[in-house]
Amino acid sequence: VTLPQGFLGASADAGIRKKRAPDVALIVAESGANAAAVFTRNRFQAAPVQIAKRSLTKSGGRVRAVVVNAGCANAITGRAGHDAARRVQRRAAELLGCRPEEVFPASTGVIGVVLPDEKLSAALPEAIAALSPDGLEAVSRAILTTDSGPKVAEATFLFGGVTRRLSGFCKGAGMIHPDMATMLAFLLTDAALTPAALKTALREAVDVSFNAISVDGDTSTNDTVLLLSSGKGKRAPSKADSNSFRVALQGVCKALARMIARDGEGATRLMALEVRGARSRRDARLAANAIATSPLVKTALFGGDPNWGRILAALGRSGARFSPAKVSLRVGPLTLVADGEPVPYEERDAAAVFAQEEVPIVVDLGEGGESATVLASDLSHGYVTLNADYRS
Amino acid sequence: VTLPQGFLGASADAGIRKKRAPDVALIVAESGANAAAVFTRNRFQAAPVQIAKRSLTKSGGRVRAVVVNAGCANAITGRAGHDAARRVQRRAAELLGCRPEEVFPASTGVIGVVLPDEKLSAALPEAIAALSPDGLEAVSRAILTTDSGPKVAEATFLFGGVTRRLSGFCKGAGMIHPDMATMLAFLLTDAALTPAALKTALREAVDVSFNAISVDGDTSTNDTVLLLSSGKGKRAPSKADSNSFRVALQGVCKALARMIARDGEGATRLMALEVRGARSRRDARLAANAIATSPLVKTALFGGDPNWGRILAALGRSGARFSPAKVSLRVGPLTLVADGEPVPYEERDAAAVFAQEEVPIVVDLGEGGESATVLASDLSHGYVTLNADYRS
Repeated sequence: VTLPQGFLGASADAGIRKKRAPDVALIVAESGANAAAVFTRNRFQAAPVQIAKRSLTKSGGRVRAVVVNAGCANAITGRAGHDAARRVQRRAAELLGCRPEEVFPASTGVIGVVLPDEKLSAALPEAIAALSPDGLEAVSRAILTTDSGPKVAEATFLFGGVTRRLSGFCKGAGMIHPDMATMLAFLLTDAALTPAALKTALREAVDVSFNAISVDGDTSTNDTVLLLSSGKGKRAPSKADSNSFRVALQGVCKALARMIARDGEGATRLMALEVRGARSRRDARLAANAIATSPLVKTALFGGDPNWGRILAALGRSGARFSPAKVSLRVGPLTLVADGEPVPYEERDAAAVFAQEEVPIVVDLGEGGESATVLASDLSHGYVTLNADYRS
Repeated sequence: VTLPQGFLGASADAGIRKKRAPDVALIVAESGANAAAVFTRNRFQAAPVQIAKRSLTKSGGRVRAVVVNAGCANAITGRAGHDAARRVQRRAAELLGCRPEEVFPASTGVIGVVLPDEKLSAALPEAIAALSPDGLEAVSRAILTTDSGPKVAEATFLFGGVTRRLSGFCKGAGMIHPDMATMLAFLLTDAALTPAALKTALREAVDVSFNAISVDGDTSTNDTVLLLSSGKGKRAPSKADSNSFRVALQGVCKALARMIARDGEGATRLMALEVRGARSRRDARLAANAIATSPLVKTALFGGDPNWGRILAALGRSGARFSPAKVSLRVGPLTLVADGEPVPYEERDAAAVFAQEEVPIVVDLGEGGESATVLASDLSHGYVTLNADYRS
C-alpha cells in the first residue's frame, strides 16, 4: 500500500507498550506539508496535544514529520510529561534536519504515566532508516491499542486536472480508551492546499464523521485528527477542485469513523440515529447525544429489544427544546410514535429491525429544519469485561 | 409497622402486572393532609404526573388519598392514557367521598402502555376495605418492580413539645426502569405543617438525597416524591420545631436514597463522590454528574480498578469551569493527584480502597467554595443482563 506522493512512513518497536510489537509510527513529508488539525476539547489535554497545537501555530501550519507512539498517552503528567514530549520533538527535528515545531507529536495509551522519552528517541533512527513510500500499513498498525485491526481508507479525486490521492488511517475503539486512551486519525493527500483551506475542509469533514460517532460518550485527553497536504503549487484551487477534495475527504473520514464505531469496545450492533425537525442544530445534537449515550437505550440495542419508551425517555431528559405532542419516532420502516401518540405495530416487525446489525432510528421533533446524526454502538457484556479489567 | 397518626394504608391485587401480587397501594389521610411534591423534569411526563401536579394546585395542597399502581407507567400514552388516569381518580373520589383533585395518582411500569383503569378501579373497594393503621408494609411492597425488597425508613422528632413521626417508603433501582419505569417515594408525617412549609423542606431534602444518587444517568417519565402531613393545628411551627422536622426529613430521604443506590440495577459497589472547590454549585454538579455517569469510571469501579485517569478524563469533558493545574484527587486516604500533577502511590493501597463496598472519591477543583456529592453505583454485567432482557 503506497502513501500519497511526497510522504514516507515507517514504524519501530520502542518497547513502550507491554506487548512487544511496533509502537512508534513515523511519517515524513519529504518536502514538508501544509497541515490542519483538530484536537480533543477535553480540559485535560495531553502534553503532545498541547505541544502539537503550539507547534502548528509557530510553524505557520507546516509539518515535516509526525511522531506517534502507542502504549502511553502522556496525559495528566504535569511538567515531567511536557518536558519528555519536547525532548522527543527536538530529537526528531535534529535527526531529520528540520525545526522542532515542524515535528507533530501524538500519543495514545495509559493516562497518568510520563512518556519514556529515551526509549522513543532511541527508536527514531531505526524508524528513519526504514522510511518508505510503502509504509502505510506499518504506520497504520503501530498506532493501534485495543483495535481489532488497522483502520485505513483511501480515495482518489480529480484536482487541477490530475488524479490526486487521499489516504487516511486511524485508531480508536472508544471515545476514550481505558489504559489506552483515545482516537487518533491521520489524513494525507498529495493535492496542493493551503493550511487555511485544509482547516476549513477538515472541520467540515470531522463534523459529519468523527464527531458523529459514539461508543461510550467519554472523550479523551489525546484525540487528534491531522490532515497533511504534500502538494506544491501556490495557486488557489478552483471551486471544482475544492469540491472534489471535500467529497473525497468526507468520504474517507466517514469510512474511518464508521470503522471506529463498528470496532467499538464490545460492540455487537450499531444504531444509525437521526434527529430531525429540531429548532436548532444545538437542540438536534443534545437530543441525539442523550439517546446515543443512554445506557438503557444501548443495553436494549444489545438485547435486540425495540424498547422505544427508553428512546423517548432519553430524549425527554436531553435538554433539547421540543413539545412532546409533536414528536414522532421511526425504527426502520415502522412508525412507532406519531405526534406524541403511540402507533399500533407488530412486535415481531419491530424485533426484526432491532435484530439487524445496524438499526436505523429517526426521531422527528416536528419543530424546525435542523438535524443531527450519530452512529453509536451498543452496551454489551463485552464492553463491561474489557473495561472492568484491571490495568496491570 | 404502624403509619403515623391520621394515615391508613392497604394494598390490592388488580392484575396489572404480569406476576400476580399486590400491585395497587392505597394511602388514605383520614381527615386529609397537607401536601407537597416534586416530580420528574423529563419532558415526557406521564399522565399521572401531569394530573397529580394539576390536582395539587387545584386542591390548594390538600390530599385525601394516594393511589399508586405498579406494572404500567401510563407514560407517552396520549389522550387515552390521560383519560384512563382521570377515571381512576374520579372513581377513588366517589368511593372515599372526597373531591377528585384530592386523590393523588402515581404509576410505575412499562412506558407506552395505557393504564388498564377498569382493573385498577375494580380493585379499589378491596383496598378500601383493607385500610389499616398497620398498612405500611403492604403499601411499601405493592409499589415495587425490580427492587430486591421494600425500602422503608422512619424517624421520630420533637415537634411542639410532642414526639411526632415521619415514615417514608420508596421504590426504584434505577433513575428509570426499562419496562418498569421509575422512582417513587412517599413521606408521611403526623406533625402539622402547611403545604408551603412542606414544599420548602421537601425541596431541600430531595436536593441532598434523591437528587444526589445515580444509577445510570437516565431519568424517568414518572419520578414522584410526595410528602404528606396529617397533623392539625394552624399555628406556624417554632424555629426549633421546623429544624427538628427538617433534620428528620433529610435523614429519612437520605436513608431511602441510599437504599435505591445500593439496590441499583446490577450494582456491586458504590462510589461516594464529592466534588469540592468549585466556582459555583452548577460547576460542582456538572463535574460530579460527568464522573458519576461515565461508563469508563463505572466499569473501573465494578472491576475494582483505581484507574484515576478515567475520573479526570470524565471531569475534563464535564463542562465545569476549572484549571487542570489546580485539580486534586483523593481516593479514600490516598492523594493521587495534587495541583494537576500525579503523586506517587502504592498500587496495592489504591486497589484496597477500590475493593471496598463504598469507595470515597474527592475531586477538589481548587477554584472556590461550592461542592456537590453523588452516591453512584457501578456498571456491571448484572446491569447489562437486566436491561438487555427482552420485555416480553
